[in-house]
Amino acid sequence: MSSDLSVLGISGSLRRASLNSGLLRAAAELHPPSTEYATFELADIPLFNSDLESNGPPKAVVALQETIKHSDGLLLAVPEYNYSISGVLKNALDWASRGDPSVLDGKPLAIMGAGGRYGTVRAQLHMRQIALHNSMRVMIDPDLHLPRARSLFDNDGNLTDAKTRDKLRAFMVAFTEWITHSRTDPTLKYR
Amino acid sequence: MSSDLSVLGISGSLRRASLNSGLLRAAAELHPPSTEYATFELADIPLFNSDLESNGPPKAVVALQETIKHSDGLLLAVPEYNYSISGVLKNALDWASRGDPSVLDGKPLAIMGAGGRYGTVRAQLHMRQIALHNSMRVMIDPDLHLPRARSLFDNDGNLTDAKTRDKLRAFMVAFTEWITHSRTDPTLKYR
Amino acid sequence: MSSDLSVLGISGSLRRASLNSGLLRAAAELHPPSTEYATFELADIPLFNSDLESNGPPKAVVALQETIKHSDGLLLAVPEYNYSISGVLKNALDWASRGDPSVLDGKPLAIMGAGGRYGTVRAQLHMRQIALHNSMRVMIDPDLHLPRARSLFDNDGNLTDAKTRDKLRAFMVAFTEWITHSRTDPTLKYR
Amino acid sequence: MSSDLSVLGISGSLRRASLNSGLLRAAAELHPPSTEYATFELADIPLFNSDLESNGPPKAVVALQETIKHSDGLLLAVPEYNYSISGVLKNALDWASRGDPSVLDGKPLAIMGAGGRYGTVRAQLHMRQIALHNSMRVMIDPDLHLPRARSLFDNDGNLTDAKTRDKLRAFMVAFTEWITHSRTDPTLKYR
Repeated sequence: MSSDLSVLGISGSLRRASLNSGLLRAAAELHPPSTEYATFELADIPLFNSDLESNGPPKAVVALQETIKHSDGLLLAVPEYNYSISGVLKNALDWASRGDPSVLDGKPLAIMGAGGRYGTVRAQLHMRQIALHNSMRVMIDPDLHLPRARSLFDNDGNLTDAKTRDKLRAFMVAFTEWITHSRTDPTLKYR
Repeated sequence: MSSDLSVLGISGSLRRASLNSGLLRAAAELHPPSTEYATFELADIPLFNSDLESNGPPKAVVALQETIKHSDGLLLAVPEYNYSISGVLKNALDWASRGDPSVLDGKPLAIMGAGGRYGTVRAQLHMRQIALHNSMRVMIDPDLHLPRARSLFDNDGNLTDAKTRDKLRAFMVAFTEWITHSRTDPTLKYR
Repeated sequence: MSSDLSVLGISGSLRRASLNSGLLRAAAELHPPSTEYATFELADIPLFNSDLESNGPPKAVVALQETIKHSDGLLLAVPEYNYSISGVLKNALDWASRGDPSVLDGKPLAIMGAGGRYGTVRAQLHMRQIALHNSMRVMIDPDLHLPRARSLFDNDGNLTDAKTRDKLRAFMVAFTEWITHSRTDPTLKYR
Repeated sequence: MSSDLSVLGISGSLRRASLNSGLLRAAAELHPPSTEYATFELADIPLFNSDLESNGPPKAVVALQETIKHSDGLLLAVPEYNYSISGVLKNALDWASRGDPSVLDGKPLAIMGAGGRYGTVRAQLHMRQIALHNSMRVMIDPDLHLPRARSLFDNDGNLTDAKTRDKLRAFMVAFTEWITHSRTDPTLKYR
């Protein structure tokens, strides 16, 4: 149906059995049926270098930018490396933030993360500041932090814990509501 | 008119000639005519101590909580002391955040600040994290940072710079729009 | 002995049974015997207002500044309120940071905290940024975060958990070493 | 001379005419004669993926890790992209932080940055938090923020402004002193 919302999920980890990529796969199963859902893999994104833009950005970057542009909301699964988001994810966002307006400008965003002693709390704080630069509309509640998450997933990184699956289901419903709400924000014009 | 929005301005500085208090006085002149505007002074708020709550919070604290509760949006003028918001303001927010829900929960908020080399950019970043704890709906755009602000004000701390007054007028219009928008946020129920 | 180091402990909470004040009392028992240890209570510090400085700062503030000045290192127990340090503590630091140089400039500092889901990790991050403004020498390792700390203390807020007491003892030894080291820092002259 | 200190400079930008890379080239001219100085280019570092470590990390990563390991101090020039350090630099640090201990653990670090309205102040705050995870010994004073830096450099990104060159020279002297001091830090054993 043309009025369906589309959510684009991106994981900050390239590791095959990544818990954060597993969270995104679970989101693919648990999002509301009225929402379209797709993911984008960052493995082919080159390191950011604005010199590469002179003849148009690299092909994988164009694909990333177009895919974000045509999605209604961005869902980021952020592993915490060194108290911040992964360089892999930051690098992709550096590319995506190019242009005026960029494809990130004013985009509805939900942030979630698994792992670490404190469930990626520090990485998520950094991510919110990064999103602020792009005037992204970051969902406030509910949040999704999964500390010491190893036991919530099987060995292939699939989310198996029933309670966490319920949380994620509610998170995806809320995000759909947030996207719909954010699209009517009259202050988007002040960007 | 009963449908009018009310904005409550609070300055993080108690100094008589404070630039941030001056910003708030200018907001009193420049807000949209359809918006009610009041300020609350923090001088009488005691240091936070939850032991004082056992027989009901101190009178000044009750006044602060009630005034916030009955306002539709909170406007904070944040001086930057030691790379963060002032202790005076943080102390008031610590009192205001008490209760479940507290009067801060989900409240629309606009942050502005004058002073310093970088226009209170670090204090405003801290303020956004503090607001996140209370699920406050913090306006994203436009922002209002006033670096090296001394020359924009007269000696009594009144905002005299025409360009900055125009910025502030637009900021207040945007905040009114933001408040109206935030009140319809369906994700407020996830707090 | 005149070569002894002195540590000054300050709690960010005024509550009688505060876990963070309890941590400081435990530090009084567990610090190395060669270190002098004292605490300073913030209950009488007025709200910061630079207008009050014109005839000399208030008496309690002078006492705070003098006590910090004559200590060799500052030990802060930071409760986390609203994802940051308490307003009570921030207000005291705002007073202490006055003057050029202030009594905080270059002072060795150790930060610890009890409580919350994540052991005051966000408050400690804010505290490190605040300390940076004052060029304080903040101890890096070991850290001391005590999540869900209630069960480590008795009902009066005394630290009873043996393992945590051992951690704190090691923390205090490390801080003594850190103070001694920081006093020889040749880059203190660049403040 | 075998007692010479070696500093390794890394730029967070890959752009040919990058101001931050220009800062590093200027550091190569202005560091104390008793200090060895080298730079490492990040262009060949692949995106971080811990699966790639199973047969030993990629060649460029081994080179990065070895070069950091054999340097006495790390000098990072951090452009500010999206209110944080560049993904290019974060990705390199994610690789460098691998292992226990990693080559970053306890390493003396100096941070500088050029560009933006506020001289990379937000990126440098993020960098300090990232460094904390690795217990890096980050120099506190002097700092080096260069707001609106375009006019301080020629069109090839060479630092030409005399006053800024003096600042950088003093910064490099201070960093040499900081490295020497950090190597004697007795609390390094608590990592």
